[in-house]
Amino acid sequence: MVFEYSKVEAEEVVEEGSRGVKVRWLIDRRLGAENFAMRMFEFQPGGHTALHRHPWEHEVYVLEGRGTLISGGRRYELREGVVAYIPPNELHQFRNDGDTTLRMLCMIPAEGCVGR
Amino acid sequence: MVFEYSKVEAEEVVEEGSRGVKVRWLIDRRLGAENFAMRMFEFQPGGHTALHRHPWEHEVYVLEGRGTLISGGRRYELREGVVAYIPPNELHQFRNDGDTTLRMLCMIPAEGCVGR
Repeated sequence: MVFEYSKVEAEEVVEEGSRGVKVRWLIDRRLGAENFAMRMFEFQPGGHTALHRHPWEHEVYVLEGRGTLISGGRRYELREGVVAYIPPNELHQFRNDGDTTLRMLCMIPAEGCVGR
Repeated sequence: MVFEYSKVEAEEVVEEGSRGVKVRWLIDRRLGAENFAMRMFEFQPGGHTALHRHPWEHEVYVLEGRGTLISGGRRYELREGVVAYIPPNELHQFRNDGDTTLRMLCMIPAEGCVGR
């Protein structure tokens, strides 16, 4: 299965504390992927995820834009080419501090694919 | 754990049938990632992986360059923004047909992280 990312619809992330964030579920169980999922997140300028934690990890690769990751009480600068591993249960938040879209891939294990 | 991808060394892929391909293991068990790994592959012009199969899937995102994926007997064009899901046991090969580096992320489940 091969396709352009833009063929997958960007859905608004609906979670208290999240604002101006869309997600495309690029690879998940619908394609037969049983172990982990690939999502693309797009943050408007000023957009951010909730400051939250959950029992599964994130593996992140930043594609474009500028932002901040708060993870485990520390702040990290996000830009193209930055890789982030957020362990299970770590408190974290992504923010777009720039004036263009912040775009990243975020992979999670099947455990985190609630309702999908 | 947050870092620039270039901080991780690019190692030559050593496999019969592979040529001009390097891999950076960006996220794996060394960082505590128990479920799946993130690797970055870089193909020189003319470089290609072996035409092979294995019992684990690939989740791929193309970052730059031009190439071809052969998967399940079909050919697909690779360019920035292309997503590929290669199911377990499917015969596949990646090739750089362009005149610049072909660079992609390729995630695999822990099962495929042999010796790491």
